[in-house]
Amino acid sequence: MAIITLTSDFGEKDHFVGAIKGAIYCELPDVKIVDISHFVSPFNIPQAAYIIQNAYKSFPKGSVHIIGVDSELNPENKHLAVQLDEHYFICADNGIMSMLCSEIAPEKIVEINIHDKILDSFPGLDVFVKVACHIARGGTLEVIGKTIDTIKPTKSLVPFINEDKTQIIGSIIYIDNYGNVVTNIKQGFFETIQKGRDFEISARNNKFKTVYSKYSDVVNFDIPEDKRHDEGRGLVVFNSGGYLEIAVYRSNPNTVGTASSLMGLDLMDTVSVNFTATPLVTKVKEPVAKLQEYK
Amino acid sequence: MAIITLTSDFGEKDHFVGAIKGAIYCELPDVKIVDISHFVSPFNIPQAAYIIQNAYKSFPKGSVHIIGVDSELNPENKHLAVQLDEHYFICADNGIMSMLCSEIAPEKIVEINIHDKILDSFPGLDVFVKVACHIARGGTLEVIGKTIDTIKPTKSLVPFINEDKTQIIGSIIYIDNYGNVVTNIKQGFFETIQKGRDFEISARNNKFKTVYSKYSDVVNFDIPEDKRHDEGRGLVVFNSGGYLEIAVYRSNPNTVGTASSLMGLDLMDTVSVNFTATPLVTKVKEPVAKLQEYK
Amino acid sequence: MAIITLTSDFGEKDHFVGAIKGAIYCELPDVKIVDISHFVSPFNIPQAAYIIQNAYKSFPKGSVHIIGVDSELNPENKHLAVQLDEHYFICADNGIMSMLCSEIAPEKIVEINIHDKILDSFPGLDVFVKVACHIARGGTLEVIGKTIDTIKPTKSLVPFINEDKTQIIGSIIYIDNYGNVVTNIKQGFFETIQKGRDFEISARNNKFKTVYSKYSDVVNFDIPEDKRHDEGRGLVVFNSGGYLEIAVYRSNPNTVGTASSLMGLDLMDTVSVNFTATPLVTKVKEPVAKLQEYK
Repeated sequence: MAIITLTSDFGEKDHFVGAIKGAIYCELPDVKIVDISHFVSPFNIPQAAYIIQNAYKSFPKGSVHIIGVDSELNPENKHLAVQLDEHYFICADNGIMSMLCSEIAPEKIVEINIHDKILDSFPGLDVFVKVACHIARGGTLEVIGKTIDTIKPTKSLVPFINEDKTQIIGSIIYIDNYGNVVTNIKQGFFETIQKGRDFEISARNNKFKTVYSKYSDVVNFDIPEDKRHDEGRGLVVFNSGGYLEIAVYRSNPNTVGTASSLMGLDLMDTVSVNFTATPLVTKVKEPVAKLQEYK
Repeated sequence: MAIITLTSDFGEKDHFVGAIKGAIYCELPDVKIVDISHFVSPFNIPQAAYIIQNAYKSFPKGSVHIIGVDSELNPENKHLAVQLDEHYFICADNGIMSMLCSEIAPEKIVEINIHDKILDSFPGLDVFVKVACHIARGGTLEVIGKTIDTIKPTKSLVPFINEDKTQIIGSIIYIDNYGNVVTNIKQGFFETIQKGRDFEISARNNKFKTVYSKYSDVVNFDIPEDKRHDEGRGLVVFNSGGYLEIAVYRSNPNTVGTASSLMGLDLMDTVSVNFTATPLVTKVKEPVAKLQEYK
Repeated sequence: MAIITLTSDFGEKDHFVGAIKGAIYCELPDVKIVDISHFVSPFNIPQAAYIIQNAYKSFPKGSVHIIGVDSELNPENKHLAVQLDEHYFICADNGIMSMLCSEIAPEKIVEINIHDKILDSFPGLDVFVKVACHIARGGTLEVIGKTIDTIKPTKSLVPFINEDKTQIIGSIIYIDNYGNVVTNIKQGFFETIQKGRDFEISARNNKFKTVYSKYSDVVNFDIPEDKRHDEGRGLVVFNSGGYLEIAVYRSNPNTVGTASSLMGLDLMDTVSVNFTATPLVTKVKEPVAKLQEYK
């Protein structure tokens, strides 16, 4: 039985999320419904895109992902159903899908056309549920919409590179639960430009010359534990989504502080990487091997 | 297999919600458990009633709804199981059910009497779970309680109408995740009094002469997008639950502001509607047609 | 089919929790996944231990509990799988299991050794999921780790008793959703020392001479409701987990205030119990009878 996931800016206090689940179970009693996040900041398209992009790949192929962010139908905000990477996405044409499609070409896009009339102020409950259940039952996209080939473009979140390729200028696109700040610089992109050169990463007046592959790489375990002072130290990692992230070791907004609070970093702030002229040995750790199948 | 939903003021940090689910799965391994909300403000009866009232109708008939708000058993707070609208509700006799029963007559009410002794400081875990699983298995209410016909009344949340029916005086009963403020004035009630007359809605020093059927109706899509300034504009809609709601277009508590923050509106504040003497053409949009079945 | 529960400090905004669930469903489409809490304060070991300890017992025997708090693998933070009380726990060797094992002797502990290489900055997603699914399928611990018999000790949270046993000095280990403060003094421990004597409980300048078995025991129901002023009164109960808890009747952080806010009590604050010299009649209510089976 298929999985339907939910990503929204509804929060979890109101009745909306419960009501959507009830409506889905009315149509498909045996479906699995999984919450990805309901704490997207209201109407925040890049945040919604970052979250769904990093979550969907872990789900089985064929999963259906409802994204209820800025989804009220209006003349400039059509409803889409998109097949991409063997997953299905249902959302408004507000830029979220452009961000996903910029990495992987979609297999099919339809504009949903089963609203005989505009329904109400809460479209997720009716149209998105109908479409999701139709797909989860194995129905095709053509039945619920007409194929289109262009969707609303998004202000590209790709970082800027200078002409002689000595500098990447990126920006902060997400701040996570630990206050770590995530940039739009992906590991593959970074390494393509780097070509093994040394580098310095700058964010405000913070400088870093190493990118770790996990947080505790910042710790020197040869020093006895009671002599170390690593808690609260800044560091840079490629996070589990492959993004360059500025973090603080064992951060906590209420005690130690976080990368965001301690370094004064906020959404949209600039993070730049300057490469030395001559290629040297990379400080970036080798890509890690895949865990061998274990069953 | 039946569905058991959970609505409470437990929050999601503590172990309570997880423990309840574990206890339910011990009795009924195949039941579906759905969270409606655990972020009801502690002991807030009207908020709990508003949430469950708007959520339960989306669930399949026969669903069982546990409401863990102000539910400690004591001489003035009996435990109820109620059958209403072909759904089942388990909660304390603290006013929540009176609010639901004021709209739809209950089919049956029992006072739960299977507590041989008062149990502990966390009744939801024991008695409510036992009763919910009993009902979910198809058991009857009479087995777990004695039929009663009166429950604790609630201060009615019905708005006031003046004698010559030129004014409705309502109040704000709920503030949602977007900071939109929901009044106790329902669409059917409004239209019965309105009889097609023009009107002016007042909340503090904010005035509105139109009720939209969705948020983006406030936007004039004939104006080019970069010339519009709709974000942050106040408006009034009948929300998806049918309540008159004062909203702000694309509100966000952290950026644009919300109806609550921008207009200074809070729970229990008065919202009044003044009708003109002569019936004119209604500004309220026609009720929308039901989406035709699509399967 | 087995149940896998999740307890973490990931929060619910980021994609982490959704991604873990997706990964589990890829391996075990029919498993039940239950969230216990994702709002553990970042890296807070005692809080995580308190929550899982109070939640796990409600789940069916054989359930698998993933604890994603401070779980990055490093030379001082091995990964454990533990069988205890016929439940399975997967977490880092950071003190959480020591707290659980201090109450109930574990049946088996293994150090997980299926990471061929260190994987990434998000170990829960890969190793913990693999191990949880292996156990949920009925696999044995020996296959995924090597048996060990010592784990990292924890600063014991057992309260201090003076030499002549007239005083218990405990501390606040948890603050719940209602702002009630939970101490490390358990009912059985308290009663063993008390031996029927009168007592006075002190927390800052607040004194209590009675421990109730439920919150509304503080109310005198013989006084008419409109003459009572119980809302906001301080009281002490043994909570549903059996811990001595200082509470406020019908507390609410936004209105009435809470034990934490009204009495100025915070995590790690001292709570002491002074017993009188002579045993008298206990003020602690009798342990309550177990609800007779009702099916």
